[in-house]
Amino acid sequence: MFQFDEETRTQSIGPDQFSAHVHPNWSIGANPNGGYLLSLAMSALHQQAPQHPDPLSVTVHYLRPGLPDQPCTIEAKVLRTGRTLSTCRATLVQDGAARFELMCALGDLGASNATSTLSIPPPAIPAPEDCLPRSAGQQGVALPLLERLDIRLHPEETQAGAAKRAQVTGWIRFKDGRAADARSLLLFADTFPPSVFGLLGPVGWVPTVELTVHIRRRPAPGWILGQFRTEDLADGRMIENGLLWDSTGQLVAQARQLALVRTPG
Amino acid sequence: MFQFDEETRTQSIGPDQFSAHVHPNWSIGANPNGGYLLSLAMSALHQQAPQHPDPLSVTVHYLRPGLPDQPCTIEAKVLRTGRTLSTCRATLVQDGAARFELMCALGDLGASNATSTLSIPPPAIPAPEDCLPRSAGQQGVALPLLERLDIRLHPEETQAGAAKRAQVTGWIRFKDGRAADARSLLLFADTFPPSVFGLLGPVGWVPTVELTVHIRRRPAPGWILGQFRTEDLADGRMIENGLLWDSTGQLVAQARQLALVRTPG
Repeated sequence: MFQFDEETRTQSIGPDQFSAHVHPNWSIGANPNGGYLLSLAMSALHQQAPQHPDPLSVTVHYLRPGLPDQPCTIEAKVLRTGRTLSTCRATLVQDGAARFELMCALGDLGASNATSTLSIPPPAIPAPEDCLPRSAGQQGVALPLLERLDIRLHPEETQAGAAKRAQVTGWIRFKDGRAADARSLLLFADTFPPSVFGLLGPVGWVPTVELTVHIRRRPAPGWILGQFRTEDLADGRMIENGLLWDSTGQLVAQARQLALVRTPG
Repeated sequence: MFQFDEETRTQSIGPDQFSAHVHPNWSIGANPNGGYLLSLAMSALHQQAPQHPDPLSVTVHYLRPGLPDQPCTIEAKVLRTGRTLSTCRATLVQDGAARFELMCALGDLGASNATSTLSIPPPAIPAPEDCLPRSAGQQGVALPLLERLDIRLHPEETQAGAAKRAQVTGWIRFKDGRAADARSLLLFADTFPPSVFGLLGPVGWVPTVELTVHIRRRPAPGWILGQFRTEDLADGRMIENGLLWDSTGQLVAQARQLALVRTPG
């Protein structure tokens, strides 16, 4: 069993109730990564609506940081299920307090790679072997999740404060060889450095208020290419847009988050 | 009292429970507009968390079409409230069935128009008097909501199927002179024609699966400029991005929705 599957296992403990363990291997600094916590809830929801295996639209509001290396319970509920969609809600609780609230639509993206009527082509960037590994030093916090994920960044975007715009581009895959699937794209959508890093310098932890991810198709095997950009930052609140493409160049996910950033000055 | 305020009035009928009437004046074809239904829930939530008057991030999943000219009940609940944010949930029910599920973060955008560190400038388009009113004929369905909203579209984008890309740009305001506020931007984010209209021709009703709107600042008085664009349409599912600016050119909202479209051919 691969690390991601092992460390996002959830167990049914009653109607709409699941238990799991928040593993410490997916943290940014002292906090479990939001995309990882989200993956725990998706694992529970998958047991609730197995006929709709793919997350089409997932929104999560983070209420409090998660607690690493501690148990959690997850309430995971199907609100409505139809032929093509299941609409669901989930809450992850640790130590008696909700850590996030999630709402999503699950469906079936199928194996088909139908031609897109409209799509967004991937940017041209250096191959993974010519990119630079994401490192803790770049962001100024410890990054346990780099033991689990191989993240390579565009060499021209890795110098803090040196960029002309708030953009991060790079490659991502699981370190242990697990193939990316629709569910893991939710994780990948929240594990690149904050896109404001190159523009503003080390900004530490950029807490996400709300994250929405749309999965557009199941990814082909291989590296996932990600590009994250912030074009709207005001009053310490930023909107970051992310795009993910698979190794065949197909757009596989779009993400957007509202996050807090302490702007220098 | 202005029409929008009158027709989104909600009344407390018990703990976390409100009643309202779904007025028939805000429909697209036979269905109440999603942005209007959403506004009913925001009105209820405003009573629950008056200290945080502005919606910062709102996500709604539409489960079934609303029923025009019928009563509704709204469950509106504050999940967590802190110094700067209240995280809330709401469900709108008609005829015993949930019509949508909503999750949002409310806050206080203040009167301040602090300078943005990063922002997106508005496009240059003809003045409202040189744009064309949105009309029912353009989309092939009756549009009662045009009795309530004044919508003027870029003259080069109003011919069905003639555009080179899926984009709709135009102006919007209330017909009765009510000034736009943060809450009404949620409505404005969902009342332009589908952006695929110019590219694909009349597409009828484009049902929204999920809509997320981020309000970035309180708008100045005057027309609101909106631009909506679809760059990702595959397997009958499109991601449409919207931007709204106020009359001073400040970005006031960003929106994204997952919608279903029957592509011709």
